[in-house]
Order: sequence, then structure tokens, then C-alpha cells
Amino acid sequence: MIEEHIIEKLKGYVELENEAELQNELNNMHSADIAEVFEQITPDEREKYFGYLDAENAAYLLEEVSPQLQVELLGNLEEEKAAEIVSKMSPDLMADFLGDLSDEEVSGYLNKLPQRVSTQIRELMTYPEDSAGGIMTTEFLRVNENITVEETFAYVRTKATSNIDFYYIYVVDKLNHLLGVLSLRSLISSPLDMQVGNIMTADVFKVHTSDDQEYVADSIIKYGYLALPVVDNYNRLKGIVTWDDAHYVNEEETTEEIYASSGISTAIFDEDEILTGKLMLAVRARAPWLLITLFGEFIAVNVANHFDGTLRQLPVIAIFIPLLAGLGGNIGTQSVTLMVRGLSTGQITMNSALHHVFRELRIGLIIGLTFGLLVMVVTWNWKNNIVLGSVVGISMAANMTIATLLGGVSPFLLKKLKFDPAVASGPFIATAIDVIGLAVYFILVTLSLKFLI
Amino acid sequence: MIEEHIIEKLKGYVELENEAELQNELNNMHSADIAEVFEQITPDEREKYFGYLDAENAAYLLEEVSPQLQVELLGNLEEEKAAEIVSKMSPDLMADFLGDLSDEEVSGYLNKLPQRVSTQIRELMTYPEDSAGGIMTTEFLRVNENITVEETFAYVRTKATSNIDFYYIYVVDKLNHLLGVLSLRSLISSPLDMQVGNIMTADVFKVHTSDDQEYVADSIIKYGYLALPVVDNYNRLKGIVTWDDAHYVNEEETTEEIYASSGISTAIFDEDEILTGKLMLAVRARAPWLLITLFGEFIAVNVANHFDGTLRQLPVIAIFIPLLAGLGGNIGTQSVTLMVRGLSTGQITMNSALHHVFRELRIGLIIGLTFGLLVMVVTWNWKNNIVLGSVVGISMAANMTIATLLGGVSPFLLKKLKFDPAVASGPFIATAIDVIGLAVYFILVTLSLKFLI
Repeated sequence: MIEEHIIEKLKGYVELENEAELQNELNNMHSADIAEVFEQITPDEREKYFGYLDAENAAYLLEEVSPQLQVELLGNLEEEKAAEIVSKMSPDLMADFLGDLSDEEVSGYLNKLPQRVSTQIRELMTYPEDSAGGIMTTEFLRVNENITVEETFAYVRTKATSNIDFYYIYVVDKLNHLLGVLSLRSLISSPLDMQVGNIMTADVFKVHTSDDQEYVADSIIKYGYLALPVVDNYNRLKGIVTWDDAHYVNEEETTEEIYASSGISTAIFDEDEILTGKLMLAVRARAPWLLITLFGEFIAVNVANHFDGTLRQLPVIAIFIPLLAGLGGNIGTQSVTLMVRGLSTGQITMNSALHHVFRELRIGLIIGLTFGLLVMVVTWNWKNNIVLGSVVGISMAANMTIATLLGGVSPFLLKKLKFDPAVASGPFIATAIDVIGLAVYFILVTLSLKFLI
Repeated sequence: MIEEHIIEKLKGYVELENEAELQNELNNMHSADIAEVFEQITPDEREKYFGYLDAENAAYLLEEVSPQLQVELLGNLEEEKAAEIVSKMSPDLMADFLGDLSDEEVSGYLNKLPQRVSTQIRELMTYPEDSAGGIMTTEFLRVNENITVEETFAYVRTKATSNIDFYYIYVVDKLNHLLGVLSLRSLISSPLDMQVGNIMTADVFKVHTSDDQEYVADSIIKYGYLALPVVDNYNRLKGIVTWDDAHYVNEEETTEEIYASSGISTAIFDEDEILTGKLMLAVRARAPWLLITLFGEFIAVNVANHFDGTLRQLPVIAIFIPLLAGLGGNIGTQSVTLMVRGLSTGQITMNSALHHVFRELRIGLIIGLTFGLLVMVVTWNWKNNIVLGSVVGISMAANMTIATLLGGVSPFLLKKLKFDPAVASGPFIATAIDVIGLAVYFILVTLSLKFLI
């Protein structure tokens, strides 16, 4: 890996006490690369390296690392130095960073900024973290409808050295109402004296500050836009959300979906707090669905207990319980996984629900009958009892088929009932299979008991 | 949902036999929206609507729909008409489409294209589907190092009406060797008579045609580039991969990871073939890990069989097997899910493995002891037997703790051994827990048998 090699090089400079070269190397690295290096070195090394970065590069680095690391890196610095670095972060990331701090600390940082900037940051901090307002940036290009193409070029040139992304140029009126959008492409192909109001695209896809981040990200990806403008209730342009924001939102939502499907809640905590936050938070995120599973498994215990008499007469049947439950749970989870992911990516729609459930059922039958036959033959030979072999084999086939049916149906059912199909699908299916599978098995055993002993 | 509303509107035109309005409406919709509509209507309606689209809009739509739908839509058309539409697709998507057809059909389409284009398509089709060459587009802006900024503007203007994305302009020498890259930003801020060779960024991050698509996508996202140039062995510029390609690659890789974690293989088949392809392909994608699970569960059966005597003396102990296996499997899966996803997003690195395993262990202890106590009290009261309650409770605590330890360790172990940590983590953990948990339980029961009966 490239980072290993970079880390060795940096450590080499430290050993040789070649501070000039170390400083030079660090300040010429891409902040995304430094962030990867920082994840792999000790806190002491991080503190040392961070001190060599220029304020601007330090700010870029802060934008790339986790909140925990941000706090660690800045915590080691004097207040003045920390404020200088933070002031160079982009407004949206600065707002995110300050959002995790106490009111007192926030004021400490904001008081050192120009009034105009601190007002902007305070406004950004009022939007919910997972809304368009919460993820938008306030750095973008904006021109008045009356200026010419030539004037727009001049304006773009003044911004060319800054850190603004040049995706689109937004056209507004005097009161900052969004009127349209200009692409650099249309700008380049138009006469210099043309007013931008005449060449802009007026029919612009926009989102509202309060729109959910998932909707915003999905729109960016669906239509292939590089950025979307964000407006308030009065159609005033407040910021833009860019394609890379969409990527991070997408990654976050996917992580939440994956966690949810094994019964890990991200409703109260951020998805990264579960990995790094307080231990009791992680316990609280994981325990609720385990408790529900506990309740469900007690039903399974009761089912088994109901057949106490059968168990007493033929204790050997107990040894096949893990086999039946394990394979049923497994193939059922496969069905759930396919349906949940398909619904999430759009490969499966509610309209095709029946088709997919039926397909799962057929797959369950094919695999179930094959595995049932296999288990029957093995058990028959092992225990030298063809009836026992048949009962276990038939139970296996029934179990696996029912599992694919349940696993195929439940995501659609949950979605129909307006629940998230991913939520706890894993634990739910495993438990349901345990209950139903056990019942099927014990009923079959009880019915054929006279041939078994 | 917006699509419902659109579908009703379109159906209204059909009922009123208002063909002109239907045609107008369809040709003014975004192809991504039509694609969503097409997923929700019948094949007959699709055929009807598709016929109303201009060749260009039909081509855009084809780029948005699944391979199955592409074949369906084109299959209904005359050969001439189909070829006209396909010829308007972007080269990379055309190559993807043709890649799924027979040699004969491919020739049929390519023979109708200009020689220059068909040669390009044939070249694109030689790259593996999951390589940089397989996902790159050949439509991009390219200029010679010797031309001026003014000439570059003129060139960009000639391309302004075409469908090329204007991310960057690549600078090459006469033999098409990649020399550098120009952003529109630098172009706008430079004197008109400057040669582009003097203002380009020469230190350009590039990938090779044979590079894995995941590496390319990760690089785009990591560094926030809108596009990356793709070169061959001789540094000749062959194409570019754009940010939206990176998104689709990422989605595909995530889907494969999610499928793999429940034991669904995408090694032989594409991830969408499992949902829509031949039934026996889907069976073959799912059966191998189920077979391995079957083998694993037979070990569990053997463990239980080993304690045949204990079972015979106290058959009631069998009823708690699903409870123990279910909760152990569940919390173990949670641990695996967190580690696998963390490794995949980079939130967890191999360096922090010990920290995370230890954290999982502590969480397992906290939840395990709590649940163990709960189960002990319930069982004790239910069966009126404190020893039985204690044995089941202690087994539960041990089971859950071991499950988090196993679930925490195995992803790191797999990665260390150069396996994909996601592969079959679900089935593996559930089975391992069944085997070890059963052993712990039966040993405890056997040891305390004299106090139990």
C-alpha cells in the first residue's frame, strides 16, 4: 500500500531530524493522503506532524478526518493557533465541526472570525445535520441576471484562486432569488456582451434547505448533476450541495441500512458513534433488537417445550435442531438480503414483488429438496433409521422453503406498512424460522413417533 | 411519489388518444424519470411509449435502464430503427450493451456505424468489464500542448452542443501521450495567447486501462476529482472515468459486499443476474455457502450427539438450544457487520484491530451478563429449578461473549489472510456459534447433571 511507503519516508525524516524536508513533504501531500497516514500513526506522531502543516493545509486535513481526530488535533494547540486553522476550513465543514462542541467553545472560535463569516456559520449551524441545509456549502459562484458574459468571466477570474468549486454559476435577482443556472459550457459559447439572464437555464432543479439529505443525494445521482442549488421558503439561494456530498450521504445511508439489517440502531446515535463512542451507547444501540430476539426465541423454547413428551420418548431428535434452524436461518437471510438491497438500489420495485417472492419460493424449493434429500440419506445411514432420516429430511426441505418465502415476503410487507424493510430483517427472519421450523419438525416427529421407536 | 403522478398523466393521454401530447410529454421528460416510469408499467405500455421517443431520447433512455430492459425494448423494433438508436448511445454504454449480445448481433449493429466509431467500440469491448478500460468513456476534450488558450476556447465552443461532459481538458502531444490537464478555471484566468502547455497541470493523477474499477472509483472519491484520465502501457490517453461512474462502481461493490456477507457469491455471475437471471444461476450463486453451512451444522449435530447420554437423562435441556444459538448468532452477526463495514469504509484499520476486538468483547460481556441474568431468572421461575436456570443463564452469557469475540476477530483474521472479510461472514459466524455454544452448554449441563435431576 502506498501509505506504508509514505509513513516510512516521513519517519525517516524524523529520525534524521530533517525538519525542513519533513515540513516540505507534509505540505506537498494531498490532505486525503495525510488523513490516511494519520489513521495509522500514534497520537504523538500525529501531534508532531500536524504542527508542521501550514494553517491552510491543516484546515484541509481537518476536513478529511473524523470528528474524534479533529478534537484530538486541535486540543493540543494554543487557542489562537487553533482558531486560525478552523477559520480556514470551508463554512459547511466548520459548522459541522462546531456543531459537536459546547456553546462556550463555539463562541470562542466564532468570536475570532469576521462578523460576516461568523453570522454565516451560525446560520449553517441551525439546519438539522441530515437536511440539505446541513450538508450544503455556502461557497459557490453567483451573479446578477443583468450582468454580461464578459463581466461574468471577470468575476470568475477574481474567484479563480480561491477554493470554490466551479461547477455551475447561479443567476439571482437583487434580492437573491434563484432565477437560473449557467454552465461554464454555455458561458464559453455565448457572445461576450450577452446578458446572462438571456443564456441561463431558467428551469433549474433545486432543493429546499429542509429537504432530507437522502432525497438530495439521490437526485444528484439520478440526474447526474454536479451540484444542486438549495433555497429557503422564499426561493432565496442559500447554498449548494455537490456530487461529493452526495457520495458521503450515500455511504452514510448505506452504512445505516447495513447496520439496521443486523438489528443495530442508528436512530439515536450517529453511525460512527457505535464504533468509537461511549461503550454504553454502543450497548444501547444493539440491545433493543437482541431483547426482541430474546422474546421471540422464548416462543421457540415454548414450542419445543410443548413437545416435551415427544422429546422424552425420543431424545435423539434434539440433536438435529441446530441443523434445521441454522440452514433455515441462513437461506432466509439470503432472501431478505437480496430483497432489501434490491429495493434500496431500485433493482426491485413494489410492482415486481410477487414475481420476486415467487422466484425466492422456487429457489427455496430447489435448494430445500436437494438439501433435504442429502440430509435424509446421511441421517438414515448414520442412525440406521429410514423414518428418522425422512422426518429430518422433509423438515429440512420444508424449513428452507418456508424460510425463502418468509424472507422474500417480509421486506415487501414491511415497506407496504411504511417501515424500513432493512430494519432488523436479519434477527427477525432467524427467529421466525426458529419458531416455525421447530414447530414443523416437532409435529412431523410426533406424527411419525410410532414408526420411530 | 412523483412517478405515480407522471404515469397517470401519460395513461390519460393514451386514453384520450392524444398522441401528439403524449409524444411531446415523453420527449421532454428526463431520461432518468422515464426509466423509473418504465420500471412500473407493463411491457405493452413500454413498447408503445418507447415508439414515441426520438432516436436520441431513446438512446438516453437505454443508457438508464437495465440490460434486460434494453434487450426487451430493442427487440420489438425493426433492425434499422434499433441500429439508429444504438448508434446514438455513448460509446462506453454502447460497448456494455453489445458486450451482452452474440457475435452475430454485435456485427449487425457495428456494421451500420461509421468505421471510426465501430473500431472504437470494438476496442472498448476488449477491456474487462470491471477494469478502468471497461468503465471509461471515450468522449472527452483533448488538445495539443502547442495550441493557445484562445484556440482552446474555439475548440471547446465547437464541442459545446455535443453531449461531452466538460470536466477537464486533457493536454497531449502529437502521439496522444498524456502530458497534463487543464481546468476550465485555469483556462478562464489565463491570457488568450498563452500556450496551454504552459498553464496545464503536468502532475496529473492517472489510471491504467487494466486498473481495477474499485481502485479507480476509490481514487475519484478520495481526492474529489470529477474525472480521471485512463492511459495504456505507453501513456497514451484512451479515455476518462467520471464521478458518476465512480458512484455506480461503488454501488455495485457495496452490493457485492452485502451479498457476500450472507453467503451469496457474485464471483461467477453479475450481481443483477442473481435477481433476474436464470433460476439455476441463482441457485448456484447461493448453494455453495449453504453447503459449507450444512457441513458446519453437522459438526454441531455431532457435538450434540456426543452428549446423547445427558440428553437421555434430561430431555428438557434440548428446548433451550434455539434460544442459545439464536442470540449468540445474532450478537455475533452484529459484531461481524460492524467490523466488515468499518474496514470497508475505512473507519476501522488493521492497526486498530485489537482495540475494536477488545471493545466487542466488553460489549459482549455487558450484554451477555445482562441477558444471562434475565434468562436465568425466567428459567428458574418457569421450571422451578435454580440449577437449570443457572446453567442456561451462564451458557447464555458465555455464548454471547464468545460470539462477539469470534465476530470481532474473524474479519481481521480473514483480511490478514488476504481473504475478503465480508465473504460469508454471516453463515460462518452463525455456524461457529452453534458449534461452540452447544459444546459449552452441554458441558455445563453434563457437569451439573447430578444437581439437575
